[in-house]
Amino acid sequence: MRIILLSGGSGKRLWPLSNDTRSKQFLKLLPSPSGEAESMVQRVTRQLREAGIYAPVTFATRATQAETITLQIGGEVSVVAEPERRKTFPAILLTCAYMSMEQQLADDEVVVVMPCDPYTELGYFEAIKQMAEAVENDVADLILLGVRPTYPSTKYGYIVPMDGGCKVKRFVEKPSVATARHLISEHAYWNGGVFAFRLGYMKHILQSYLTVDTYQELRARYAELPAISFDYEVAEKATSMAMVTYDGEWKDLGTWLTLTDELRHHKIGNVVTDGTESNTHIINELDLPIVCLGTRNLVVAASSDGILVSEKNKTEAVKIYADGLQLRPMYEERRWGEYKVINTTEYPDGFRSLTKHLTIRAGKSISYQKHNHRDEVWTFVDGRGLLVLDGVVTEIGRGDTIVIKKGVRHAVRAVEDLSFIEVQTGDALVESDIERFQWEW
Amino acid sequence: MRIILLSGGSGKRLWPLSNDTRSKQFLKLLPSPSGEAESMVQRVTRQLREAGIYAPVTFATRATQAETITLQIGGEVSVVAEPERRKTFPAILLTCAYMSMEQQLADDEVVVVMPCDPYTELGYFEAIKQMAEAVENDVADLILLGVRPTYPSTKYGYIVPMDGGCKVKRFVEKPSVATARHLISEHAYWNGGVFAFRLGYMKHILQSYLTVDTYQELRARYAELPAISFDYEVAEKATSMAMVTYDGEWKDLGTWLTLTDELRHHKIGNVVTDGTESNTHIINELDLPIVCLGTRNLVVAASSDGILVSEKNKTEAVKIYADGLQLRPMYEERRWGEYKVINTTEYPDGFRSLTKHLTIRAGKSISYQKHNHRDEVWTFVDGRGLLVLDGVVTEIGRGDTIVIKKGVRHAVRAVEDLSFIEVQTGDALVESDIERFQWEW
Repeated sequence: MRIILLSGGSGKRLWPLSNDTRSKQFLKLLPSPSGEAESMVQRVTRQLREAGIYAPVTFATRATQAETITLQIGGEVSVVAEPERRKTFPAILLTCAYMSMEQQLADDEVVVVMPCDPYTELGYFEAIKQMAEAVENDVADLILLGVRPTYPSTKYGYIVPMDGGCKVKRFVEKPSVATARHLISEHAYWNGGVFAFRLGYMKHILQSYLTVDTYQELRARYAELPAISFDYEVAEKATSMAMVTYDGEWKDLGTWLTLTDELRHHKIGNVVTDGTESNTHIINELDLPIVCLGTRNLVVAASSDGILVSEKNKTEAVKIYADGLQLRPMYEERRWGEYKVINTTEYPDGFRSLTKHLTIRAGKSISYQKHNHRDEVWTFVDGRGLLVLDGVVTEIGRGDTIVIKKGVRHAVRAVEDLSFIEVQTGDALVESDIERFQWEW
Repeated sequence: MRIILLSGGSGKRLWPLSNDTRSKQFLKLLPSPSGEAESMVQRVTRQLREAGIYAPVTFATRATQAETITLQIGGEVSVVAEPERRKTFPAILLTCAYMSMEQQLADDEVVVVMPCDPYTELGYFEAIKQMAEAVENDVADLILLGVRPTYPSTKYGYIVPMDGGCKVKRFVEKPSVATARHLISEHAYWNGGVFAFRLGYMKHILQSYLTVDTYQELRARYAELPAISFDYEVAEKATSMAMVTYDGEWKDLGTWLTLTDELRHHKIGNVVTDGTESNTHIINELDLPIVCLGTRNLVVAASSDGILVSEKNKTEAVKIYADGLQLRPMYEERRWGEYKVINTTEYPDGFRSLTKHLTIRAGKSISYQKHNHRDEVWTFVDGRGLLVLDGVVTEIGRGDTIVIKKGVRHAVRAVEDLSFIEVQTGDALVESDIERFQWEW
């Protein structure tokens, strides 16, 4: 048995804490049994293990999230990053092709595809085990998860079962309230977005679109696959389907309103209140203090990307504004550590400066690279490491300043956790201005 | 006639926009006839001129505010900075001594002392002219301004006049509501904190405390003067007093509640709202965007010092917290330009780093100085200038990086507006780690 965790999301609804490289599933805000805060992907992978599901996990995700996943979950998971964004059907197909062609798994291997960010409880994972068993027992080609509805929601898809059975009759997407009420009276369930099947099932579907000999070939021709959801392209067309049902907590913590409901603490970070506030959640990732006095029903969230102050019931609207505000990520976790942008300036003639505070973790290194449009000045403020400049290695550490002019190849490796301030100057200060080279430390 | 403007204040009640070097009277937030926002001191000096009062203005203030005053009002005002903080009586005495001993003004010169930050209208300045005339006409030694009360306030001092005249009978400080009501029925006025007298009057008072031959000698012995308010030490003891009355707008814009009432715009700076907010004022000095959704009766203010989110009626409480939060000024306007602290870090062994973005205005320079506890790395990102390092002058500009090790004397002069990122590292990063030297450009 294999698990595919779908990790997508553009992260707009939890702005300013989420951004293009840090979607909501990576925010370390949820309470965990260890007492330390954990992210949604950390929670779901922990819950899988707690439910006794030790199947290898592969993330189907975007390239920008690969580093964060490795950083949060560790090296024991595989990551298949889609070459471009094309919805869940091609992403699942690509991941299955990876399992089949790269990992050489057998056609009868059971695969369970699930979202990486549902907020659920143990019963959910028991249902997933039942789904895998249903595939093993050849109950149907495709097994779905039906979540028992708690109200006639107009936001979800519904699975309508055959009379008195677990076989699926039809799907209804986002119905009206009246239709939803009727569906519930027909014993319809919410579509939980979890799918179980044998690997050969998807291999067969792939063949109906493209004939490829290798996984790499499929990656190269990824754009030829239709950009459509797995629900529409596979589930709604399937002829042999059954449903396993789940009756328990099942939440999308995708808005500040739903997320703050699950937080253990009302104040996270450098926050001061006067004690007269009520139903106020304040999450501060900045070094600057936030003082809240007498606020009611409010979410305050601050990061290097911006500051949100929102009435709890209005938080969903932030996604409308997040797009226009997001110029570049101001904070990123990378496989080597993290950086924060602390200042950006653009001058009338188009020249720019950008200042970052970076930390490279002990033992990690930044790849050997050069930039064509910017100079960089690094002032090391803590730790020790090795620096390469055009092939020459020197030791560097606290108090050292290095000027890296454009065109100069450079890499750095932390011996101890290494912090430095980087001042970039040039006419184009973008992450894509980078050429990478090989370097053996 | 001379005007003394009292400029004190620790700036806690308008945190985070005000701090020790930027008290409320310097915040450029008020609407002005020119359309550009102006500060309280800019407003009061403009109003003096508009009322036809062209008397030279001297600010009685603290050393930390001297640069800001010159920057906001220009070189045409004098500034007397008290050697240490000792309340209004010694500050006014010192300023009068400056006028008498340094400026050599005659004993019969009329002096009007007034706060620099009342929010008033033209009639207020007409009353000030009447006060000066009353001194000219020798109505009394000391002329006070009585402001007609609009409600039985318990926060103000009251001036009780003699029956049917302008002579002053007595003072009552911060009475109960019942007493205030009775005082108002006796035709008492609020003490407006404006005083007019002849310079010789204060010279005489000074002689009763200290015998000094020069202004510098008084500065040196400043600590010997009692730290007491002018009201208590002079007004309450005076035997010849009269009052000029004023009936018009007279406000203290000293809290976010009263200040926001006078702002022309609800949003200042990088602010986005969804249009569903009500009675919300958002003032953002940060580069980061602030998004407010559906907020009600709220003040949101953000600066390099921190972020305030406060119910309008709770804003006064911020002064309780401001003290604990204020570690060092994070933004300052100086006579040579301005700086903003963009990052500070302290490491477990006590080593620190502090990163600033500085701008020196064309033609201005930073004094020739050295530091004993910190290295500085300057990366110039815009403009052109001259740099001195241990006596050697070089031209510097965009793209240059200079490392200034501790002990090295340095100065810089902007030929064009000069911007740079400064990274300080060392074991004590305080503004006081500075030794200044002479340098002739």
